[in-house]
Amino acid sequence: MRQKIGILGATGMVGQRFVQLLEHHPWFEVAWLAASDRSSGKLYGDAVKWRLGSALPEHIAQMPISPATPDDAPKIIFAALDADIARDLEPAFSAAGCAVISNSSAFRMHEDVPLVIPEVNADHLPILENQTWRKDSGGYIVTNPNCSAIGLVLVLKPLVDRFGVDSIFVSTMQAVSGAGYPGVASMDILGNVVPYIRNEEEKMQAETLRLLGARDGKVVRPLAAKMTAHCNRVAVEDGHTESVSVKLSRPATREDILDAWRHFTPLAGRDLPTAPAQPVEYIAPEDRPQPRLDKMRGGGMTASVGRLRPCTLLDWKFTLLSHNTIRGAAGAALLNAELLVSLGKLHPVPVPA
Amino acid sequence: MRQKIGILGATGMVGQRFVQLLEHHPWFEVAWLAASDRSSGKLYGDAVKWRLGSALPEHIAQMPISPATPDDAPKIIFAALDADIARDLEPAFSAAGCAVISNSSAFRMHEDVPLVIPEVNADHLPILENQTWRKDSGGYIVTNPNCSAIGLVLVLKPLVDRFGVDSIFVSTMQAVSGAGYPGVASMDILGNVVPYIRNEEEKMQAETLRLLGARDGKVVRPLAAKMTAHCNRVAVEDGHTESVSVKLSRPATREDILDAWRHFTPLAGRDLPTAPAQPVEYIAPEDRPQPRLDKMRGGGMTASVGRLRPCTLLDWKFTLLSHNTIRGAAGAALLNAELLVSLGKLHPVPVPA
Amino acid sequence: MRQKIGILGATGMVGQRFVQLLEHHPWFEVAWLAASDRSSGKLYGDAVKWRLGSALPEHIAQMPISPATPDDAPKIIFAALDADIARDLEPAFSAAGCAVISNSSAFRMHEDVPLVIPEVNADHLPILENQTWRKDSGGYIVTNPNCSAIGLVLVLKPLVDRFGVDSIFVSTMQAVSGAGYPGVASMDILGNVVPYIRNEEEKMQAETLRLLGARDGKVVRPLAAKMTAHCNRVAVEDGHTESVSVKLSRPATREDILDAWRHFTPLAGRDLPTAPAQPVEYIAPEDRPQPRLDKMRGGGMTASVGRLRPCTLLDWKFTLLSHNTIRGAAGAALLNAELLVSLGKLHPVPVPA
Amino acid sequence: MRQKIGILGATGMVGQRFVQLLEHHPWFEVAWLAASDRSSGKLYGDAVKWRLGSALPEHIAQMPISPATPDDAPKIIFAALDADIARDLEPAFSAAGCAVISNSSAFRMHEDVPLVIPEVNADHLPILENQTWRKDSGGYIVTNPNCSAIGLVLVLKPLVDRFGVDSIFVSTMQAVSGAGYPGVASMDILGNVVPYIRNEEEKMQAETLRLLGARDGKVVRPLAAKMTAHCNRVAVEDGHTESVSVKLSRPATREDILDAWRHFTPLAGRDLPTAPAQPVEYIAPEDRPQPRLDKMRGGGMTASVGRLRPCTLLDWKFTLLSHNTIRGAAGAALLNAELLVSLGKLHPVPVPA
Repeated sequence: MRQKIGILGATGMVGQRFVQLLEHHPWFEVAWLAASDRSSGKLYGDAVKWRLGSALPEHIAQMPISPATPDDAPKIIFAALDADIARDLEPAFSAAGCAVISNSSAFRMHEDVPLVIPEVNADHLPILENQTWRKDSGGYIVTNPNCSAIGLVLVLKPLVDRFGVDSIFVSTMQAVSGAGYPGVASMDILGNVVPYIRNEEEKMQAETLRLLGARDGKVVRPLAAKMTAHCNRVAVEDGHTESVSVKLSRPATREDILDAWRHFTPLAGRDLPTAPAQPVEYIAPEDRPQPRLDKMRGGGMTASVGRLRPCTLLDWKFTLLSHNTIRGAAGAALLNAELLVSLGKLHPVPVPA
Repeated sequence: MRQKIGILGATGMVGQRFVQLLEHHPWFEVAWLAASDRSSGKLYGDAVKWRLGSALPEHIAQMPISPATPDDAPKIIFAALDADIARDLEPAFSAAGCAVISNSSAFRMHEDVPLVIPEVNADHLPILENQTWRKDSGGYIVTNPNCSAIGLVLVLKPLVDRFGVDSIFVSTMQAVSGAGYPGVASMDILGNVVPYIRNEEEKMQAETLRLLGARDGKVVRPLAAKMTAHCNRVAVEDGHTESVSVKLSRPATREDILDAWRHFTPLAGRDLPTAPAQPVEYIAPEDRPQPRLDKMRGGGMTASVGRLRPCTLLDWKFTLLSHNTIRGAAGAALLNAELLVSLGKLHPVPVPA
Repeated sequence: MRQKIGILGATGMVGQRFVQLLEHHPWFEVAWLAASDRSSGKLYGDAVKWRLGSALPEHIAQMPISPATPDDAPKIIFAALDADIARDLEPAFSAAGCAVISNSSAFRMHEDVPLVIPEVNADHLPILENQTWRKDSGGYIVTNPNCSAIGLVLVLKPLVDRFGVDSIFVSTMQAVSGAGYPGVASMDILGNVVPYIRNEEEKMQAETLRLLGARDGKVVRPLAAKMTAHCNRVAVEDGHTESVSVKLSRPATREDILDAWRHFTPLAGRDLPTAPAQPVEYIAPEDRPQPRLDKMRGGGMTASVGRLRPCTLLDWKFTLLSHNTIRGAAGAALLNAELLVSLGKLHPVPVPA
Repeated sequence: MRQKIGILGATGMVGQRFVQLLEHHPWFEVAWLAASDRSSGKLYGDAVKWRLGSALPEHIAQMPISPATPDDAPKIIFAALDADIARDLEPAFSAAGCAVISNSSAFRMHEDVPLVIPEVNADHLPILENQTWRKDSGGYIVTNPNCSAIGLVLVLKPLVDRFGVDSIFVSTMQAVSGAGYPGVASMDILGNVVPYIRNEEEKMQAETLRLLGARDGKVVRPLAAKMTAHCNRVAVEDGHTESVSVKLSRPATREDILDAWRHFTPLAGRDLPTAPAQPVEYIAPEDRPQPRLDKMRGGGMTASVGRLRPCTLLDWKFTLLSHNTIRGAAGAALLNAELLVSLGKLHPVPVPA
């Protein structure tokens, strides 16, 4: 008995990843697909420009695309919408009693909307009870962070917990799939680097500090650290690579840090289907991690880290990599949904007393 | 009347750039080509695997490749050798009275060998008089920095001069041509990032501080700043892109910094053929500089910079780009030679009294 | 005294190439730029997303973009329009007395519109006298072929002339710039091949046979050969590579064919500024031509050919390459204009008696 | 109870694919790994530069690399050697009684060595009984074709069987992994096409006709068709794309051809673990197949075909794609081994009476 779920924005790159990741999911079943008005009424297989290397499942291809309204939608909605559209649609669905598990940036920094990575800040979830929609209909919005923030936060969290983190420097080399489809023009990126992604640095900085912050009753207080991000686009299909330097609050040896990463298994025992055994994996060879070789670790849900070495400016530096449309988008939302199930908050979605 | 010059390592990537850049040079004429024993005796056109987008000049193709010994070599030598080979050959040529204008890393950090960018530290050149070879035969070695350091130093120099620089953070995205030919395997870089280049971070850090340092009599004292480098390889043919944050010693506004770059023309009036009118050029659009679009500014000799904005960790951040085999290698050496001519140190190469 | 010309579609990829190629042109001067209504009224530098590796000339950047109407336009117009738009605009300009030198496919197969490559079929030009516009206002349309046809036709023409050609097989590997900007999505082409370009095979087949055909009074009779084309898109920025097999009407040795190419200089003596000394150049090394190394031969106007060897199915096979936005688009139109000047048909544009 | 197998050339690209494909194989177990003298004695994990996107299995990483001699080797050997080395080693192993399932070109055209694709010409296998080694020790060599031939032959076989094939034209766009590691230099292929692969056209032509030929007693007679191949290298990691035209012996409609492909299931009922349900799959959208999207169909063992349309020179044309290191190399050999098991020829390897 799998729970029926719906996907908003089902034809986009992240929507396609939802379809792919949910194909054999033990808890959830794709029962409803919605996309733009242009696609509505068509069969999914006719409307989608499928861009993934695994075949589009035939039974999904045959599903009709519904209008993007909550009327006949399931009560669990994975939302993969552009921020502009999400700003209208996500509240509409939550007001209609849906649990909206969102990948959009529209409400990530809203004070009552949990911005969550299950391994990092599951304890931020209770702020969803502040949402008006929650109080009215039982529905709510939960979000996951930007694709560039998520790998960074996974890797930093064990350091914050053990040693404290005062300063963070990050320079990214981000894959083109992060820009959706058609997204980045080939004329812009073949044999090139584009040292700019609109709003990305601002989102990455704000979300990272919020995710690493602490909940204080009904509010989340961001981590009191200084952080700067440089965001670049490179000619990679999937997988964001990041060069990171950090200053710690308390001294740590190389072995201390490796140990912190190795023992970072906060979801152990929960048996969430999409959770990787090892959320952070250290790759020893000196030229790793690399997108091609490492993005699919843990089914695309593991953040790989390598090249830990002293930093002559801050304390330590390293390189990290995470899959931007799995761990950084659809897989992140899916894991959020699984966590909510595990906490009894997803099914059924009860109206609080 | 052009002076005859020789090229050591003429068949490699940098050697080819020397041939290309010298084709129509007003002061120098390629008169002698040397390469490995394997190529010696062949015609250059048969021995070289020409990888540049302009045609190999026919008269150069017909030149024989000489053994790599100073016997019949001209007294001005451009050296484009691997460090291991340079360690033996460059002293042999300077001992034989040659001015060795080297692109190799072998002697860059030698205390008596000037590591020079003409716009930055022409005043370091006098230390070449300390060289034993110089005293014995009149020959000497002058070097230019690593391809990743040179663009950075050009952009930093006006800031050091006007405001002082205390801290430097740089993360690079370097082109494959920097690794020579065959160099980086296509299996390693197509659709990928390699977050490691052997010894590159160490060289970049040490050379940058030395170049920005001051000569004190016979020695060069490196700049007293803290610096850290992350070096990455990306799928770009030519042009190194760098994300940089800096902490200045004295406050500067955005306009102050732009002004410092705009007025950075230390070679004005010298009329060096390879010197660009503008060594540092600020590119205003928010998504620039980019390797494809900007690497050839100033004939490949200009460092482009863009995205100047406040840094939430240090003071300012920006992106820079420079052509790694022109400004970063062959063009750098050529400009050093032109500077030496202009200073009367290159032709003839007199034995000091 | 250069003649003033206008560019229709000046902000697109081909429009940019017109601007670049005309920058130092001895006969023509860019005096008028038009683009879509969206851009009209802006400065060119603000409206264009400049994608070329040479800098946008500052005086062009400061030119305003005019509405795309013939009112104030010069009488010589280079048109780089999408076919849909060209279908309306090109007749409007020729009806207003303009010589429209078009790169669009809209009228290429129109029976009264010359489809011309100067080295190949300058003798087709007289059919322009049949055009209604020509009779009414003196204006006319002249076109150049598709970017994939032009290199092929240059290479085939000497074979047709000397030996006759009965059958042509071609399989292309075309650069992304042929699709304009934004054109091909990076998600579609990074590390990939797209074996389809809409209408390309049909255009390539029809245009090739027409170009190689003979004018018979007022009509052009296509070459009576069989031809088939496979058109593919690959991850190359500029330069279309084509694998070709041909069956000749009369026997030819390898040396006969090389000789035919070597002596193919039909424009010798005309001194057209954009004409390459050698329209077809044979590149001897076994792994050539290649886009990166050979696209810029003859300033991007030479078709390179290599690997001539017997074909086990037809007679001979070889590989050719030509630059798709220079020889295959803007340069082709420019050379057409130069030919028209040389024939006295461009300036002034007289109304025939 | 899985049979123990050994891998010759285990550290190369194809050797790595063997390790990957055998990881969960129901019939075979990797028990022995051999590589060059340089690697011998090391642990596999230390000697290999693992280039695949799935993790190297830990128990394989811990296996020692044996000398490449048959002394302690299992009797079933998968050989992934360069042709030069295979010429010596493969006979040595077959003379020692091993079944050598080879991916090398060394003996593919030897008259007594079966060159086999199980779906195409399993009936060629009996010629292995002619081998001297077979008669002496029971050992033998069986080979699979070149990576570019195998997809083509799969797609042509149903056409040969139903309609006959008189003429074949093919132009390839081949992935870099076909050249091994380090193989193609990034400087040669980034943003480029290399229209040459040494000996590839000759191998592709000869092997295709042999595979499609008929066994006549102890000898194989190649198909009496005319064929020509153009082989090109493109910037794709895995997956060879081919543009094909064919002339059939008997008329066929589009539907006839699609039907022939659809019903091509010659291994149905054999239950070979690596055999795809559909060896040839037609992909309907007009811009397919594409390497990125289609190479993994059938676990990388299906040849995808698309764009079937009339050819104006021969009869029909289409595009095909197959994975060059799975179906084109390691998977091909593995399927050959499975076929031999199924025919009772592999385990045990009996000395014939």
